[in-house]
Amino acid sequence: MAKRIEIFDSTLRDGAQARGINYSLSDKIYMLGLLDSLGIDYIEAGNPASNPKERLFFEQAVRVSLKNAKLVAFGSTRRKNTDVKVDAGVKSLMDAGTDVVAVFGKAWDLHATDVIGTTLEENLCMIYDTVRYLKESGREVIFDAEHYFDGFKANSGYALDVVRTACRAGAGTIALCDTNGGTMPRELEEAIKAAMEAADVKWGIHVHNDSELAVANTILAVQLGTVHVQGTLLGYGERCGNARLSSIIPGLQLKLGYDCIGDHIKDLYHVAREAAEITNLPFDETLPYVGRNAFAHKGGMHIDGLCKAEGSFEHIEPSLVGNSREYLLSEVAGKSAMATKLEDEFPEVAKDKKKVGALMERLKDLENEGYSFEGAESSFRIFVMKELGLHKSKFSLVHFKVSDEPTHENTFGAYAVVKVNVNGENRMAAAEGNGPVNALDKALREALGQFFPELKSVTLTDYKVRVLDTNAATGAKVRVVIESSDGENYWHNMGVSTDVIEASLFALIDSIDHLLLCKKD
Amino acid sequence: MAKRIEIFDSTLRDGAQARGINYSLSDKIYMLGLLDSLGIDYIEAGNPASNPKERLFFEQAVRVSLKNAKLVAFGSTRRKNTDVKVDAGVKSLMDAGTDVVAVFGKAWDLHATDVIGTTLEENLCMIYDTVRYLKESGREVIFDAEHYFDGFKANSGYALDVVRTACRAGAGTIALCDTNGGTMPRELEEAIKAAMEAADVKWGIHVHNDSELAVANTILAVQLGTVHVQGTLLGYGERCGNARLSSIIPGLQLKLGYDCIGDHIKDLYHVAREAAEITNLPFDETLPYVGRNAFAHKGGMHIDGLCKAEGSFEHIEPSLVGNSREYLLSEVAGKSAMATKLEDEFPEVAKDKKKVGALMERLKDLENEGYSFEGAESSFRIFVMKELGLHKSKFSLVHFKVSDEPTHENTFGAYAVVKVNVNGENRMAAAEGNGPVNALDKALREALGQFFPELKSVTLTDYKVRVLDTNAATGAKVRVVIESSDGENYWHNMGVSTDVIEASLFALIDSIDHLLLCKKD
Repeated sequence: MAKRIEIFDSTLRDGAQARGINYSLSDKIYMLGLLDSLGIDYIEAGNPASNPKERLFFEQAVRVSLKNAKLVAFGSTRRKNTDVKVDAGVKSLMDAGTDVVAVFGKAWDLHATDVIGTTLEENLCMIYDTVRYLKESGREVIFDAEHYFDGFKANSGYALDVVRTACRAGAGTIALCDTNGGTMPRELEEAIKAAMEAADVKWGIHVHNDSELAVANTILAVQLGTVHVQGTLLGYGERCGNARLSSIIPGLQLKLGYDCIGDHIKDLYHVAREAAEITNLPFDETLPYVGRNAFAHKGGMHIDGLCKAEGSFEHIEPSLVGNSREYLLSEVAGKSAMATKLEDEFPEVAKDKKKVGALMERLKDLENEGYSFEGAESSFRIFVMKELGLHKSKFSLVHFKVSDEPTHENTFGAYAVVKVNVNGENRMAAAEGNGPVNALDKALREALGQFFPELKSVTLTDYKVRVLDTNAATGAKVRVVIESSDGENYWHNMGVSTDVIEASLFALIDSIDHLLLCKKD
Repeated sequence: MAKRIEIFDSTLRDGAQARGINYSLSDKIYMLGLLDSLGIDYIEAGNPASNPKERLFFEQAVRVSLKNAKLVAFGSTRRKNTDVKVDAGVKSLMDAGTDVVAVFGKAWDLHATDVIGTTLEENLCMIYDTVRYLKESGREVIFDAEHYFDGFKANSGYALDVVRTACRAGAGTIALCDTNGGTMPRELEEAIKAAMEAADVKWGIHVHNDSELAVANTILAVQLGTVHVQGTLLGYGERCGNARLSSIIPGLQLKLGYDCIGDHIKDLYHVAREAAEITNLPFDETLPYVGRNAFAHKGGMHIDGLCKAEGSFEHIEPSLVGNSREYLLSEVAGKSAMATKLEDEFPEVAKDKKKVGALMERLKDLENEGYSFEGAESSFRIFVMKELGLHKSKFSLVHFKVSDEPTHENTFGAYAVVKVNVNGENRMAAAEGNGPVNALDKALREALGQFFPELKSVTLTDYKVRVLDTNAATGAKVRVVIESSDGENYWHNMGVSTDVIEASLFALIDSIDHLLLCKKD
């Protein structure tokens, strides 16, 4: 049977220390349920001593019934020269009411003397007293040996004393921390082995990604016998972030035969996206396993290879983590890419080599003109339908005009007028915007929204401009790619022109076309 | 003396296989010079067999004089059952005219039989013939043993035969490739040791990041004796990307005592940013070493610790890579960076701490509004002059109006009218363009050209649009960066607005300002 590794997620605590992340109370409650649904063992959700919002959160969180996870409150050891029973921080930790607490103490002599400003002996007492007190109060105690690896390098005897002290005081788990994220794998190995010889306890690992080694160091620690892995699902955390669990869990479970979250691993792709959504950060699509690019192939030889031998250009089967394979169409891709791409939506066409060849030729012409369908799936679909004579738009644009000049108030200088035709009926609309494209988008929705109310629920969620052949500078062609959403689905469209407004207009029209044609299905 | 490790960058070849990356010819030439300035040893810049654009690029690139780097053309071994002397791909590789070529061949039996569809023997012949022929033609040959690690797992004997064959044929360097990026460090170690026993050659490593282990695996390979490191500066590449040199170089050079790029390491931060700018991708600020967040501290305890003991919460001194420390709460950051920036052009100001501080505050405000002077040196200069009261523009823009609508002929829909004032005299001009920005640019030159004939020799050589805060889609701010040239010098300017036309206008005005102010000098 596979060896079980405990997963400890700190997205809501260490993750919240990342630049640009601020969770509301309801965000935190939502994230708690989400992480629980993934089969995470421990969810470290905050430091109740840090502010009143955190205390309020724990009041609510302890009442949430979790299926898989244990809720963890995080805090520091008692202050120097203070009775642990009256220490305010320790009291907050107790008051949080969780069954499990994570307590951090200094394992680097420099920190004890220069940052806390106490003696090495008192630092050990602070650790002993706090762990012992929490343990005797019935808590499961995870001790985070902060800066253990830097401490080991500076004064290995003292770092090991810290570990022994926490163990003797009753810590159930000791997590060795690379708080500054600078430890190289071979140093890490030596320091872990020394700790394992010094004390007998359940070992954990907690590393930061400042050297881009957090995943490797965590996996190495597990291979050395560590059974408790700390990190954050998407790697969020102070500076360069914490060890990314979305990369570690599949590595351990799919490659090395450990068991982390069992069958929940199939939900990894979707849970990762939802976590980013709650956090309100753009998703990094190049992320291993969970990024949209992780199994997206652009090179023609790679695509050809995959069609001939599955697994020839992929390290795992994408569906194991809930992801899927994608072939990007580009000037470096070939006919087999086109055929594969057509199979889902136009299976009869995919079988017709002549038609595939003709589409490929037409696509190459368009690419020479600057089109690139690789990030605009929906425009690709419309392109194929048009080429096959299957496309019937439900509206046409009769005229448009966009104007931009400073006004008296020097604001809202851009406005647009559009005239559309739907079933023989003309309709005009006008709108201002904080730029010409924004104005055009609004006017178009205004005019068409009278015929197609479903357009009102659609929002533009992304807008990208790429200048082609930059040598021609402002006379060059631009490619505009927009992302639209009705709240549930996302689709991508593209337009190309020397005129950024016209290119945007083409993409907007394709996007509306997409919605109206999908609705019909 | 530190052991020297060769750095081989493939941003322009493997990097171009990443989703969303499309380099123009001038982008590639610019990137070539940029990477050379960082002290990179080899720059793999494309596959001349893939398309005519690539051939054209090599025609120009071989004429660029490089200070540190060797230009490398990339290609495949000859086709099966073909004489190497008439093979089209090998001929393209020769025609590229570079002193160094990188050739890849299959080291995984499955690929030889199922993807190429040949025998294991013929695959070895393809490798031998190609390496030998290129070597005898006077080229330095780097052999990429594609899929070496997967091949070693499947059929170690054959993978080692591939390596021996390339060595016997005269390859100067053999790079062992983890093409699918799925290899775990311990498997990597075993396979590298076996290769090193099988052949005596200069060893290289080439890994992808699909398991988030590319940096760790590369460092491990070097520790095992590999002296040639392949990757891409910012990790761009197919799927999850290639090994990120911006993380590997400091790891090797600052942590482990190897020498990669010598003193150029101080330029890492700025070169990384400029490379992202050329690529027109947003910079990931959480990147180790080169991200703005890498030494940005948010946690109160961390900031407090750093103030008490330097290095207590940092794994390296940020200035070693040209980065700087930032405290997100107290905002005392960046002064030294600003002073460094001023030293070249405004040495007296650089010495005045108060002025530097005031400029820093103003710069922070602008950065919060979306300005970024990385990549727009000329606008930075104008910004400083304006803040110091040294800037006196030779013209002002009184009014402008841009209009865009289809015409009867359905072409040239965009036109612009501008009114400028020079020394109290107003002058109007109008122009059509193939887009609104092009029209505005022409009208502006027309109006001002009557006063300043030198404007007529200026052309816009690059135009880039970056959407900031993509969540707001078409209502979001954009940053426009333009490159101008008078045939001899190039300069870069920037504008920010929610309105792409207005942002372009700001950049155009700055660009003209730059020319007229420089002329005075």
